[in-house]
Amino acid sequence: MKKHNFYAGPSILSEYTIKNTADAVLDFAGTGLSLLEISHRSKEFVAVMDEAQALVKELLDVPSGYEVVFLGGGASLQFCMVPFNLLKKKAAYLETGTWAVNAIKEAKLFGEVDVVASSKEANFTYIPKGYTVPEDADYFHITTNNTIFGTEMRYDPDVKVPLVADMSSDIFSRPIDIAKYNIIYAGAQKNLAPAGVTIAIVREDALGHVDRAIPTMLDYRTHIKKGSMFNTPPCLPVFSALQTLKYYKQLGGVKVLEKMNIEKAAILYDEIDRNKLFKGTANVEDRSIMNVCFVMNDEYKDLEDEFIKFATSKGMVGIKGHRSVGGFRASIYNAMPKSSVEALIDTMKEFEKAH
Amino acid sequence: MKKHNFYAGPSILSEYTIKNTADAVLDFAGTGLSLLEISHRSKEFVAVMDEAQALVKELLDVPSGYEVVFLGGGASLQFCMVPFNLLKKKAAYLETGTWAVNAIKEAKLFGEVDVVASSKEANFTYIPKGYTVPEDADYFHITTNNTIFGTEMRYDPDVKVPLVADMSSDIFSRPIDIAKYNIIYAGAQKNLAPAGVTIAIVREDALGHVDRAIPTMLDYRTHIKKGSMFNTPPCLPVFSALQTLKYYKQLGGVKVLEKMNIEKAAILYDEIDRNKLFKGTANVEDRSIMNVCFVMNDEYKDLEDEFIKFATSKGMVGIKGHRSVGGFRASIYNAMPKSSVEALIDTMKEFEKAH
Repeated sequence: MKKHNFYAGPSILSEYTIKNTADAVLDFAGTGLSLLEISHRSKEFVAVMDEAQALVKELLDVPSGYEVVFLGGGASLQFCMVPFNLLKKKAAYLETGTWAVNAIKEAKLFGEVDVVASSKEANFTYIPKGYTVPEDADYFHITTNNTIFGTEMRYDPDVKVPLVADMSSDIFSRPIDIAKYNIIYAGAQKNLAPAGVTIAIVREDALGHVDRAIPTMLDYRTHIKKGSMFNTPPCLPVFSALQTLKYYKQLGGVKVLEKMNIEKAAILYDEIDRNKLFKGTANVEDRSIMNVCFVMNDEYKDLEDEFIKFATSKGMVGIKGHRSVGGFRASIYNAMPKSSVEALIDTMKEFEKAH
Repeated sequence: MKKHNFYAGPSILSEYTIKNTADAVLDFAGTGLSLLEISHRSKEFVAVMDEAQALVKELLDVPSGYEVVFLGGGASLQFCMVPFNLLKKKAAYLETGTWAVNAIKEAKLFGEVDVVASSKEANFTYIPKGYTVPEDADYFHITTNNTIFGTEMRYDPDVKVPLVADMSSDIFSRPIDIAKYNIIYAGAQKNLAPAGVTIAIVREDALGHVDRAIPTMLDYRTHIKKGSMFNTPPCLPVFSALQTLKYYKQLGGVKVLEKMNIEKAAILYDEIDRNKLFKGTANVEDRSIMNVCFVMNDEYKDLEDEFIKFATSKGMVGIKGHRSVGGFRASIYNAMPKSSVEALIDTMKEFEKAH
C-alpha cells in the first residue's frame, strides 16, 4: 500500500532525493566507491559541498556579505552557538513554542534575555504581535515555524535590530528577505535532507564582536573560513541536501514552492473547518502551511484513537499530534505531494460519513 | 576495475553495512518509507538506536556505570565537550599529533593544561614514553591512534588519574580496558559508520563535578538521560553504525578484528621494510595497525608522483600521504580486506621491478 508520510521530522523528502541518495550509497559519482566511504577531501565530494552552498545562495537570493555553512550537531546546538557568537549584553527573543523556550534557556547562559512577548499562556496557539523590541538588543530571535503547535510567521518582521531565526521547519518554503537577518539556521531534516546536518546563513560582519572565548567548533568563523570543511562534514546528509536543492531549482525555486505549499495547506484547512468532526488548534491568521494541527471537536473526542487507526489503515503515517497539543498533526512540507494531502482529506470525509 | 579504498576517513565500510544502508534508503524496516524520511521517534528507529547502544556495550565489554551515546558534531566538538564537563582545575594531555594539538587548544579555554609529553619536535613520528602524569590532574587525555602520522598506542596506559581518549581512528580495532577511562569518544567515520555521528562512552559518576554552566547540548548528561534522543540524532549514520556493529559481532568481536588487523598491518610493513624503494615514517614500535605511513627512500624521491599514478592505475584510492608527512598513507581499517592489502603489496613489488 502507498504510504503517505506526514511525519513532523525527519520527514518526507522528494523521490529525486531518495533515489539519487540510494544510488550514491552504492556508487558515488562514478568513483566505484560508496558515498558512505568517500573522503570529504576527494574532488567529487568537494564539488558536492561547493554546489550545495552555491544553490542555497541562488535559491534564497542570499546577498553578498553572507556565507552559507553546513554544520553537524542539529539546530539545538545553534541555540548556544548563536549567543556564543552574537550576544554581547542583551538579546531579545520571541517565545512562540517549545523550541523558542529551549533557545531562550541557552541564551540566558550568555547574557541578559528580554522575552519581548510570549503565547505560552495560550499553549502557543498564536504568534504574538504588537511587541516592542528594545533598540539596544544585540539581536531579535524568532522561530518562524512552530512545528509542535502549527503556527508560523510567514514574514520577516520589521524591527530596529538584526534578526536571528530558527527556520528549521520552514526554510525553502517561501522567499526570505535575508538582509534583515544576522543568522538564519535550520536543522535540515524537514525541508532539505535526512537528519544530521544543519544549515546556517551568516552575515559575516556580525561576527567577531563578542569578548568571550569561543570554542573553535562553536565559532561560525571557523566553518566559514574552511568552507564547512574544518572538520569532517556529515557527507551523506550534505549530498542529499544537494539533491533536494537541485530538485527545488528544477521546480522553479522557492516562489513556486510557496504557491504549492499555500494550495496544499488551504485545501486541508478548508476540510478541517468544514468537517463536523474536526477543528484546528492554531489561531487562524497564524496557521502554519508546514504543520497542520487539528483535534476532534469536543462531541467527538472519543473517536480520536479510532481515527488514527482508520487513517493508518489508509496508509497515513505520522499523523498523531505531539503530546503538548494532542489530536492530530499533518506535516506537509515541500516534498509532500498534493495527492497525499487529498488522500488525507478523503480519509477525513470518509470517516465523517461513517459517524 | 575493482577499487581498493585506502582513504583515511571517511573510509572503507563493510559491504554488509553499505548494502543494508542502500536497501534501507529505499525501504526502511518494511515501513514503505525511506530511512532518510523516517521519524526518529518511530518504533522502528528507536529499536535501531537501542540495539546500537547495546551492541557497543557488548562488543567492547563496557562495565556497568558507563553509558553509550551517539552524538552529532564530530569528534572535534568533543575537544571542547570533554573539558566543559570534566575540567575542574587542571588536565593532562599527551601531544602525539594534529588532533591532540587541537584537543589541547580547546582544553586551554577551560583551565590549566599540563602537556606531559610531546613528540612534536620529531614531527610526531613516535609516541612519548616515560612521562609522569600529575596526580592532581582531573584526567589524562590521549589520542590512541594518530591518523596523520601513523602512530598508535595499542594499550590503555597505567596512570593514577582517569583516562580520556580520542579513539576516532582505532575504536573497535582491539579490546579496551574501559574501566580505566572516564570518557572515550570517536568520530565514527573510520571504523563504524559514514561521517556525521560520534560515539561517546561515558562514566556517569565522572559527570556533574564542575562549577561552570554547560550549554544543554554540550552536557553529556543531556544525551545520557534521553538515550541519545534529546534532539534529532543523525539517523542514517546511526543505522549504518548498527550494521557495522552487527557485522563485527558476526565476525567474532574485537579480538578477532585485532588479530586480522595485526596480520594485515604486518604483511604491509614487511613489504615496506623489504622493498628497496620505500621506508616507513613512524617509529617501528609505535607503528599504527590502522594507518600505514611510508615514503620513498631518498634515492628514489623523484618517483613519488609516478608511484601514485601507477597505484591509481591499479585501482588504489586515497594512498597519497597527508601534507604534514608527505609520501603515502594506506589506511587499513577494520573493513579493509586482506586481499586489498595484498593488491597494494603486489603493486609495490611490481613498481620496484620496473625501477
